[in-house]
Amino acid sequence: MTTWGESHGTAIGAVIDGCPPGLRIDREEIDREMARRRPGQGGASSPRKEPDAVEILSGIFTPPGEEMPRTTGTPLSLVVFNKDAHSKSYDELRDIFRPGHGDKTYLAKYGIRDHRGGGRASARETAARVAAGAIARQLLKRHDIEVCAYTLALGGIRIRTCDLSMIGENRFFCPDPLAAEQMEARVQEVRSQGDTLGGIVEIRATCPAGLGEPVFDKLDAGLAHALMSIGAVKGVEIGAGFAAADMLGSQNNDPLGPDGFLGNNAGGILAGISNGEEIVIRVAVKPIPSISKEQKTVNLANEEVTIRVGGRHDISAIPRIIPVCEAMVLLTLADFLVRDMAVKTRNRSGI
Amino acid sequence: MTTWGESHGTAIGAVIDGCPPGLRIDREEIDREMARRRPGQGGASSPRKEPDAVEILSGIFTPPGEEMPRTTGTPLSLVVFNKDAHSKSYDELRDIFRPGHGDKTYLAKYGIRDHRGGGRASARETAARVAAGAIARQLLKRHDIEVCAYTLALGGIRIRTCDLSMIGENRFFCPDPLAAEQMEARVQEVRSQGDTLGGIVEIRATCPAGLGEPVFDKLDAGLAHALMSIGAVKGVEIGAGFAAADMLGSQNNDPLGPDGFLGNNAGGILAGISNGEEIVIRVAVKPIPSISKEQKTVNLANEEVTIRVGGRHDISAIPRIIPVCEAMVLLTLADFLVRDMAVKTRNRSGI
Amino acid sequence: MTTWGESHGTAIGAVIDGCPPGLRIDREEIDREMARRRPGQGGASSPRKEPDAVEILSGIFTPPGEEMPRTTGTPLSLVVFNKDAHSKSYDELRDIFRPGHGDKTYLAKYGIRDHRGGGRASARETAARVAAGAIARQLLKRHDIEVCAYTLALGGIRIRTCDLSMIGENRFFCPDPLAAEQMEARVQEVRSQGDTLGGIVEIRATCPAGLGEPVFDKLDAGLAHALMSIGAVKGVEIGAGFAAADMLGSQNNDPLGPDGFLGNNAGGILAGISNGEEIVIRVAVKPIPSISKEQKTVNLANEEVTIRVGGRHDISAIPRIIPVCEAMVLLTLADFLVRDMAVKTRNRSGI
Amino acid sequence: MTTWGESHGTAIGAVIDGCPPGLRIDREEIDREMARRRPGQGGASSPRKEPDAVEILSGIFTPPGEEMPRTTGTPLSLVVFNKDAHSKSYDELRDIFRPGHGDKTYLAKYGIRDHRGGGRASARETAARVAAGAIARQLLKRHDIEVCAYTLALGGIRIRTCDLSMIGENRFFCPDPLAAEQMEARVQEVRSQGDTLGGIVEIRATCPAGLGEPVFDKLDAGLAHALMSIGAVKGVEIGAGFAAADMLGSQNNDPLGPDGFLGNNAGGILAGISNGEEIVIRVAVKPIPSISKEQKTVNLANEEVTIRVGGRHDISAIPRIIPVCEAMVLLTLADFLVRDMAVKTRNRSGI
Repeated sequence: MTTWGESHGTAIGAVIDGCPPGLRIDREEIDREMARRRPGQGGASSPRKEPDAVEILSGIFTPPGEEMPRTTGTPLSLVVFNKDAHSKSYDELRDIFRPGHGDKTYLAKYGIRDHRGGGRASARETAARVAAGAIARQLLKRHDIEVCAYTLALGGIRIRTCDLSMIGENRFFCPDPLAAEQMEARVQEVRSQGDTLGGIVEIRATCPAGLGEPVFDKLDAGLAHALMSIGAVKGVEIGAGFAAADMLGSQNNDPLGPDGFLGNNAGGILAGISNGEEIVIRVAVKPIPSISKEQKTVNLANEEVTIRVGGRHDISAIPRIIPVCEAMVLLTLADFLVRDMAVKTRNRSGI
Repeated sequence: MTTWGESHGTAIGAVIDGCPPGLRIDREEIDREMARRRPGQGGASSPRKEPDAVEILSGIFTPPGEEMPRTTGTPLSLVVFNKDAHSKSYDELRDIFRPGHGDKTYLAKYGIRDHRGGGRASARETAARVAAGAIARQLLKRHDIEVCAYTLALGGIRIRTCDLSMIGENRFFCPDPLAAEQMEARVQEVRSQGDTLGGIVEIRATCPAGLGEPVFDKLDAGLAHALMSIGAVKGVEIGAGFAAADMLGSQNNDPLGPDGFLGNNAGGILAGISNGEEIVIRVAVKPIPSISKEQKTVNLANEEVTIRVGGRHDISAIPRIIPVCEAMVLLTLADFLVRDMAVKTRNRSGI
Repeated sequence: MTTWGESHGTAIGAVIDGCPPGLRIDREEIDREMARRRPGQGGASSPRKEPDAVEILSGIFTPPGEEMPRTTGTPLSLVVFNKDAHSKSYDELRDIFRPGHGDKTYLAKYGIRDHRGGGRASARETAARVAAGAIARQLLKRHDIEVCAYTLALGGIRIRTCDLSMIGENRFFCPDPLAAEQMEARVQEVRSQGDTLGGIVEIRATCPAGLGEPVFDKLDAGLAHALMSIGAVKGVEIGAGFAAADMLGSQNNDPLGPDGFLGNNAGGILAGISNGEEIVIRVAVKPIPSISKEQKTVNLANEEVTIRVGGRHDISAIPRIIPVCEAMVLLTLADFLVRDMAVKTRNRSGI
Repeated sequence: MTTWGESHGTAIGAVIDGCPPGLRIDREEIDREMARRRPGQGGASSPRKEPDAVEILSGIFTPPGEEMPRTTGTPLSLVVFNKDAHSKSYDELRDIFRPGHGDKTYLAKYGIRDHRGGGRASARETAARVAAGAIARQLLKRHDIEVCAYTLALGGIRIRTCDLSMIGENRFFCPDPLAAEQMEARVQEVRSQGDTLGGIVEIRATCPAGLGEPVFDKLDAGLAHALMSIGAVKGVEIGAGFAAADMLGSQNNDPLGPDGFLGNNAGGILAGISNGEEIVIRVAVKPIPSISKEQKTVNLANEEVTIRVGGRHDISAIPRIIPVCEAMVLLTLADFLVRDMAVKTRNRSGI
């Protein structure tokens, strides 16, 4: 998968190469995924309005007599056109580096910078990932792989109960309805202060045993890479994660019984390969750096200035980051699934 | 970089492609690095004795009149022969899956398993990484990039002071001498119980601004991938990491002044690109799964059995994992440095 | 560079990753390149009419005060929408395998086939390559690399003089005006017979010394790969090529003098690396397989049938393949140039 | 597959990643392949004597109760130690650029050069390819893919009959015994003149339909890349190759019948994908550039000098290049076979 596009360019998109042929593509399902990360939904999210309609420009073909298109095995090109880009509102940022953003590092690296809405570094780029993830989900479903992400903590409020059926019932994709209410209150409070919030997302995936490669391309390494490539993520842990650092081997090891593992501190991955248990991942999400509080910074001439970042910004990357986390896990699992199929096929036929 | 080799095979090794030509190779420096991860040093480490002499089979040439070899720009092949492999002691494990190891998943995936010492999944494979990292260190030194890892916590004991000059003074590479003494005592205690310990490693790197790519190949994504590809690592965080989840944007943002950033919650990386500040990473290390306490598991026939894992095993992956963490960061930074050079060269010459 | 798109899909396109930042993009130059491979120009070419306007959806930014956009170092997404696709005319081909085409092999491989205009195997895909090549040309020009392709032979008529200034003066990009007239007559003759013609294209490139890698990624290997990836190409030779097979070493070796090589049997490449002389390549182009003469074939039920391929087809891939050959050489040289810059930078800075 | 090593370094080798697990490895078969390209066999070949024993350092494991080792799915590391390297005889070449070799281009690119025996550019590197090819052959045999190369022409003498059973009966792997005798005489004649010869190698492979990818990674593109990466190869053609340039479409198209194709001008590949017919490839081999005749060249100071290249050199790359051509085709087909299996598996399971 390759993505391209800037926040305030003409469009953003993705090219998916290597998708199996013959897969039926349900466009409505893609639209539903896109709707989940769309801006303009109130709550903690930006009021920017984007219909985010995904066009599939290639790689599909509706066979005579069928209604839904199928993949042909050739590259799928997905495009989302940018409609509601207010580039003007970024004009005053042309000469100032925003704290917590990549403005200064981009200029240092490339010598040229599209200052409008963060350019390539904008979270808008993740719309293309969600579109691609929706297609990966349709493939994985056929292999009984399901991925689900939700809010574990927001602004210091952590869930105390975990009822996954509640995720769709509140705007934070939060499995604890009470915590969701407190999150809502916290978001309003911080919004009025011109500040922003971080949080923790947990992702669970059912997954067959055998995905992952022994050394550098361990499944957990691939998942960490994928999730850390989301701008706001500052930490990733699998299973017991950092808590494992304080455990004894006898506590942390998951014993084996005839029906499978008797515990899941491993988070579904042993020696880099999925073990058939549920994959459990948590990611740390930093607060959104665009705050309307006054901050110290410098301008292009390296003079001290202060800045208040206006524009239409979210209070927290949560909840809109949730479908992005799901997409990255979906795309990573799809990639490893395809590799594992190849190993298993070779295994059977190679002897 | 490619590595190959099994714990109890003939040898392990690495091939490094893309190393710049003309780099002087100091073999003694490589030997010093290897000595740091070598088994048989007492304390928390395995008594297995391996001289771990690295042979460089290709890619270097000593120009007439010089004493040290230089790289030629062609692939470097590094080999470490296995000398002290006691394969016999693994015979009883041939038919039993060890909890916390990849035994069961390997067999599921490949249909064949080298049961001796974990085969390819063995931490012995990391010797090749350390050898390659030693060469990366020699390259990075010329660009003022230095990498240093140390023990932040072991068996629940966390450092309270951090004096990097103390790292070489104790066997745990611990910057707090008092904590190091407590760790020593804790290791002895747990060794007598037949159990093992986890911990946390912190890695710091000086690094120029500009390393990293905007989207999927963010520097933090590359580092997370590299570190999570070490068998015992279950979590990675950058800068404030999971603590950022509880912060406000106004707390977490690092303001900018004329002399650089006025804080380092970012851990030296913004929007996936190094910002010139020190890179700070922490990794969670799980306890070693090979314990001599009795554990429940199953055999090849899926019958319930119990197992006590004998053999020569470490009590904790710390401290021997420290040079491996350094090597992975060194190799990752070398890779990104070379990519960034290319961008900057193109930048200058492309216009 | 990644391309995507089918002959009769919504659009075709390319994503270019790794283009240096700051490069000025001249859209008119891109349009000129596209015009050279555009169908509907009479002569040997298909009457299908496509405006072939290239849209650049990302990766460029017009800095304040400048008129032309510049690349930002982020991926460039190029799109060409399909306008004049007559899918209906392919309906009768749905169940028949055309000789000389990939119809049967595609179905065998993928189990599904977009039969309209050859789908992904259509030469229409090369429009995206030409667009990308036009951008590569703008980069290479700054490094004094120029690429020029022309017709060496068409339908058995071979050039006897080679005046490169004549290339633009006839529709066959032929450096021998007399041969061009004979080619024109031959094309008309064969068109009236419902048959098609093959030919030979020669490509010359000025190129600095040092491009290419020692072993698998030799420059000639990369060029052969790139040119053989054009559908109609069945052979590639460098310098003396197949004629070198009949030479003595003393004839084939190019002696060296103080001002450079005294001959160019090597075609500008020695041991896989450019030597500073002109790169000279020839490719064999097979006759277009879509002929309106009756041919034997089979249908989906593997029954013997005969076929006459109607539709709007070229008589020869020449001349429209000429800009495609140039594009593939441009893209390959740009790729190797960027790699070589990295080696040279590392060389200078690595010691 | 990665290779490493220089002509006069400690060793040469290859790392093969992605080999299917469970494949039985017959060491004697590897030895037989190595024997075919070994120097010191008289005729047109160098008298350098290398036992060329291949050691497999990793990736194999002999299961209890079996005699032959099997692959485990982890990387195979193959090593051939250099024994008979006479580096001294290259001392006089340290400051002179040999015509027809990469000496000058290497120095320009890397700023450092291992002058002994051509260093990395030496044909000695191909020993590692042959070793790896021998393993690929064992995998392909299980899929009924066989590869056979032979001499089509040497020093202007072309075969007039083609009896493949004769290949093993003469030192030139020539299917025409009479031509082989003439080749022998021609070699002796040219040897006495201090000169060298070129030739043409033809390679045939049985191959199932479906190998190859639609656009850039066409099977013919991959084969051209692999074969052009052999130092002495200056041209590659598939099927009718350059002869197709002079044909009409009605002559070049292979009609289809119920039992398959009724002709093989395509050389077994259509639209980049194998069609089930025999794959037929020809490569042009240039004469060996190391001749003992006097040649004009320059030294490091760019002064005109003359050179006679002594040392132990072949008169022609043929016949020793024959097993190298086979190896490159074997490795390429193995790579595409594994990719195709993945597509077909996904195809079946993806719907």
